This record gives sequence, C-alpha cells and structure tokens, in this order.
Amino acid sequence: MDEFAARLRALRERTRAKALYVSALPNIRYLTGFTGSAGHLLVEPEQATLFTDGRYRTQAREQTDGVVVEVSAGDSRPALAASVRSLRLKRLGFEANRLDYETHSFLDGELPHCRLVPLKAEVESLRQIKSAAEVEAIRRAVDLNSKAFDEVCSIVEPGWTESRLAAELEYRFRSLGGEGPAFPTIVASGAHGALPHAQPRPEAIKPQSLVVIDQGAILDGYCSDMTRMIAIGHPDETQNKLLQAVLEAQEAAIDAIRPGVECRTVDSRARQVLRLTTVGGTRLDTMFTHSTGHGLGLEIHEGPRIAPRQRQKLQAGMVVTVEPGVYLEGRAGVRIEDVVVVTERGCEVLTSTSRALRVLGESGASQNG
Amino acid sequence: MDEFAARLRALRERTRAKALYVSALPNIRYLTGFTGSAGHLLVEPEQATLFTDGRYRTQAREQTDGVVVEVSAGDSRPALAASVRSLRLKRLGFEANRLDYETHSFLDGELPHCRLVPLKAEVESLRQIKSAAEVEAIRRAVDLNSKAFDEVCSIVEPGWTESRLAAELEYRFRSLGGEGPAFPTIVASGAHGALPHAQPRPEAIKPQSLVVIDQGAILDGYCSDMTRMIAIGHPDETQNKLLQAVLEAQEAAIDAIRPGVECRTVDSRARQVLRLTTVGGTRLDTMFTHSTGHGLGLEIHEGPRIAPRQRQKLQAGMVVTVEPGVYLEGRAGVRIEDVVVVTERGCEVLTSTSRALRVLGESGASQNG
Repeated sequence: MDEFAARLRALRERTRAKALYVSALPNIRYLTGFTGSAGHLLVEPEQATLFTDGRYRTQAREQTDGVVVEVSAGDSRPALAASVRSLRLKRLGFEANRLDYETHSFLDGELPHCRLVPLKAEVESLRQIKSAAEVEAIRRAVDLNSKAFDEVCSIVEPGWTESRLAAELEYRFRSLGGEGPAFPTIVASGAHGALPHAQPRPEAIKPQSLVVIDQGAILDGYCSDMTRMIAIGHPDETQNKLLQAVLEAQEAAIDAIRPGVECRTVDSRARQVLRLTTVGGTRLDTMFTHSTGHGLGLEIHEGPRIAPRQRQKLQAGMVVTVEPGVYLEGRAGVRIEDVVVVTERGCEVLTSTSRALRVLGESGASQNG
Repeated sequence: MDEFAARLRALRERTRAKALYVSALPNIRYLTGFTGSAGHLLVEPEQATLFTDGRYRTQAREQTDGVVVEVSAGDSRPALAASVRSLRLKRLGFEANRLDYETHSFLDGELPHCRLVPLKAEVESLRQIKSAAEVEAIRRAVDLNSKAFDEVCSIVEPGWTESRLAAELEYRFRSLGGEGPAFPTIVASGAHGALPHAQPRPEAIKPQSLVVIDQGAILDGYCSDMTRMIAIGHPDETQNKLLQAVLEAQEAAIDAIRPGVECRTVDSRARQVLRLTTVGGTRLDTMFTHSTGHGLGLEIHEGPRIAPRQRQKLQAGMVVTVEPGVYLEGRAGVRIEDVVVVTERGCEVLTSTSRALRVLGESGASQNG
C-alpha cells in the first residue's frame, strides 16, 4: 500500500465517518498528492473522489493514484453536492476549522437529506506525526535552506540592502532545486529587527547593527524554517547579552524535547532562561512576545504549538521549530531558530547551520564563536 | 479624509450595518493599512478596532491611523468577542465567504445576545473599483513585472532550465524593489505548457519548444500578472497557428472592454476568435479550458470574473487580466495575458511588454513580429 492509501485509511479509522468532505488544499495534497489550487475531496469507505476544474484535468490524473477525478467547467462544489445526493449519504463530515461559512450554507441548502457534521482538524492531527519519508523530505528542505544561507553569507558585503539579501536567498531557493520561499523572507536590521515579522526594506544594513534573517524554502512541497543572526562589525555588550541569552534559551528548550513532554514545558524552558538576564533593568522574558515554536510540514504553520498553556504531549515523528526571540522596541531584535524532529528517545536537530553569529568584516562574513 | 477613512465610510454606507466583523486579512489591509498575518477588525459607525497579537504590537500602531489597536497574548478572537459583549451589540455582520465555520461557531457561542448576520463579499465589492491611487500602484507593479521579464530575456540562453528562468525572474521582483511573486511563477515548455498551472521543473528548455511564462510581482502590496511566450528557434506551422489565434483572441477580448459591457461578452469574444481555427481537426475554443480573466489588486484573484455566464457589467476603475489560452494535451500550451483597466470611455492596457513571441537564437532573445 502506498503512502497516500495509508493516509486515507488512517483518516477513515480515525474519524469512523462514512463520508468526509475535505476542503483544505494542503489536506487534499496530503491525502492524494494533488497540488492544484482548486479542489474538493470526498472520502468514502471504499473510494475517494477529487472534484476540480478544467485547468487541472490532466494534472489531477497524473498526480493521483486510486482517486476518482471529476472535472467541472468552473466551480466544482455543485458537482460535489450532486455526488453526495446521488450516493444518498445521510451524514457528511466536514472540516469546521477550514470550511468557509458560505460553502457550508451552500451545501446545507443543496443537501436537505444529509446532516453536515463538523469535524475539527482531523487531517491536521494525522499530519502532525510525520512518516519517515516526510521527515526525510523536511530534512532535504532544511538542508537546501541552510545551503542558501551559507552561499549568501559567502558573498554578502557591507552596503547590501535588506531587500538584496532576501532576493539572493530566494534566488537560491529556486536555483538549488526548491519551489521558492515557504513564507515572506525576513531580513531585518537594527531597530527594524524588533518587529518579529518585519519585511525587508530597500535600505542598506548599517554597521554595528544586528540582522535577523528568518528564511524558509519549500522543496517537494515540504517547508523549512530557520532564523540566524548576522552583524556588520562585532556586537557591543548589550547585543552580546541578547545573543547569548537567546542562544541559551533555545538550547534549553531543545534539551527538553522528547516524547511525552508537554509543549508548554518546552516553551517554559526557554522563558526560564530569558528570565535570568536583564537589559536596562527589564527581564528578557518580558520581551519574548511570541510562542517558542510550531509544527511544520506541507504548511509552514502546523500543530503542535510550542506555547504557554499547551498541554499537548510531544510524540515521536512530530517536527517543530524552536525559535525564542527578544525584541527591544526601537533598538534590536534577536531570534534563533532550528527545526527539530521528535524521535523515540529524544530529538534530533535537523538544521545543520551553526547557530553562532556571523560577523561581517570588510571582506564578507566570518564565523564568530 | 485619507483613503482608508474613505474606504471605511464607503463600507458603512454600503452595508448600513451598525457593526461589522471583517476577518479576511486582505480586506483588513484595504480598510486600515495593516499588513500583519493575524488580525480581526470590528467596524462600528464611529470607530474601528483592530484585534491582533503581540508580534504585531508595534507594527499595527505604525501602519494604521484612526484605528484602535487591541493586542492579545495569543489568539485575539476572545478579545473581539469580549468587545462585542461590552458594546451590547444586538447584530454583527460577518464575511460569510471568508469566515471559517469554526470561528463562526465560537462567536455564536460567546455572543448569545447578538445575532450574527452573514454578509457576502461586501469589502470585495468595494475593492473591485480601484481608486486612482490604486490604479497607479498596480501600474507600478505591472511595470516592475515587465522590467523583470525584459531583463531576463536579455540574458536567457539555450540550456537554461525552467527553474533557472523562474529563479531569475523572482530575483528581479525583489531586486527591483518589489515584495516577491504574487503567485507561483509558471515557466512551462513543450508538452508541460499544456498544463495551465504547471510548475517550473529543473529540466532544460528544449529547442523548437514553446515556453509559457506566467509571472506576477507584488509591489507595495499590489499584484501584477502577465503571460508571454518565448521559444528557442523559430516555431513550426502548428505553433504559429496557435500563437496567432491566441493573440487575436486576446486582442478581440480587450477591444470589447468598456463600462457597461457584461463580463461574459468579453469572454465570448475570445472564444469566438478561437472557434475559427482548427488544429488536427479540432477547434481551438475546445482547448481553452479556463476563463478569460479575473480582477486583481491586493490579491491576485479578485472580482470581476471574465468568464462564461458572468452577467456582471464592467465599470470604470475595474482592473482585470485578459488571458485566453489553448492547451494541446501532450504537445504545447499557448497563453498571452495583459492587465487592463476599465476607463470612463473604454480601457487602457497597463502592460507595456510586446505581446510578440520572443525567439531565442544562439545568442539570447530577439523579438519576432
């Protein structure tokens, strides 16, 4: 049995539903291999049917195996409804966290004899546990991401803009064989780095400033995600304090990762370390304004969430980011991020790039520490 | 009054609702300027409140003006619900085509004394008519897209892979000042071009094959979209027939664009032209498997749809793509696409790049026709 058939079977076992309507495209890709931008999947006990439009007639048949493909002239939701009617289904599970209210209303109106049953993140729950093949796919995406970073670090020079740096990274996501960025690449220097989701600007990176580089490439559909810090010229005492504290926080969080540990425990390990350092009288944990990490795979944000109050337990096969950060408004941001897979006995860091600050001198980057 | 205040006022007038919950991020950006990846907007008659999380504390305040910003530790939907309760709202409009079923259920449970009223694409309807400033923003994005194409055409050589060509284009989207691609760049040669949404492959483009290049850059949030054909070596008779027919179909569709014309009329003009040509005994209109065009702006796909059965009438200020294509399964695809703005008396093609096939010889690209 191939991987897709196994996933469909696992979904059927998990939900015990006679019929399921899968509307989220990443979930359809996970279950069938179809990568198009429009589709609706009906999963029955003995059959799965993909409804799509004419643009994907050939692609849908090439990419899927053991899945019936029905092609409509335009919107394929009416064809889905007609199929549910002709099958005389009495109940149909749907993805409550993914389906828009309007499509739900449309189906509700079209299917007076079928009860629509909200299901919550069933495919997403399956997707949290990666197969060996998926872990290897993520590892390849992580390696490509690291390679792009290394190549750009070897040519970057003082005077480059944030935008130029982002452009060079994203060029390599493609030229090294990937599909492009997994999210908008962040290159944020100086005070701009204090915005956790800052966009690259056409401004030259100034000497004596720290630069947050948060980058992810997609390869064969799977995402990678890494944050590293570079600087032009050696950092001052405060900058070094931030860098050191975030590095220790990240290592403490990774050390806590193993099956059975609650996600909130991993998150709190990072915060505990940051609490021990102050800058200008303020504890660094108060400047850590987001959660410690998130799962990733076919999407850049998947479960589990490594965050406060998350009692979910880690399991072998989960792949998560670990990315504590501190943000001094108006001055600087520091974040360090790796991708980590939970193994039977602990965890493995998939990211091979050194976590140390790269210090740019007159003639390109050199490693520090 | 600034543009954002005018948009909020237009929305209030259009819906006549006392209170509206805007959940779609592009709609929030349109109404407030906020570009973050998480937010919920409550629009009341005298006030608008943006609910977001700690990552966007600084950014939300910097990007918006006249909007109250409320920051939550994580998910900001509970704060939205609490606000609606404290305001004792009896009715709250929501975006039925954008809100997921689960969030609707959550709000429904949290707000027992407030009726949730489904509204359909109200902000999207406003967004169909671009302001003068928006048309200029799109024109700049279109120009950047053309410039990237011209630059890559001046360096492309036989032997390049589809992926390399896509990488070079996307590099220029950034290096020329844009934010990146508006959609996955398509570079599809030979038989691969017969898949309308083909992804670039790491395979060299073969001589004597047609290459579909469908590319779009984002600049200051606004999208561009253009499809051009290139070839290595001069096309054969069948290829020329396809190219000529698609070019004429596209020109006929553009000629039909003016205020008051139904979208289906524009679509049918393209099909009428394709019907006049046959390849291997098959009429080309039967190989045109998608619609003729779509609106674009802050999103790559907006209204109106230029498609069969669309009776919506064009209005001045609408900006649409015109992109007929024909797809010979297993052999080739041809598509030509421009961005067109509907003016008071007709239309203006914003795309300045020549529609002619670019023929690549031994030493780079030269224009043909």
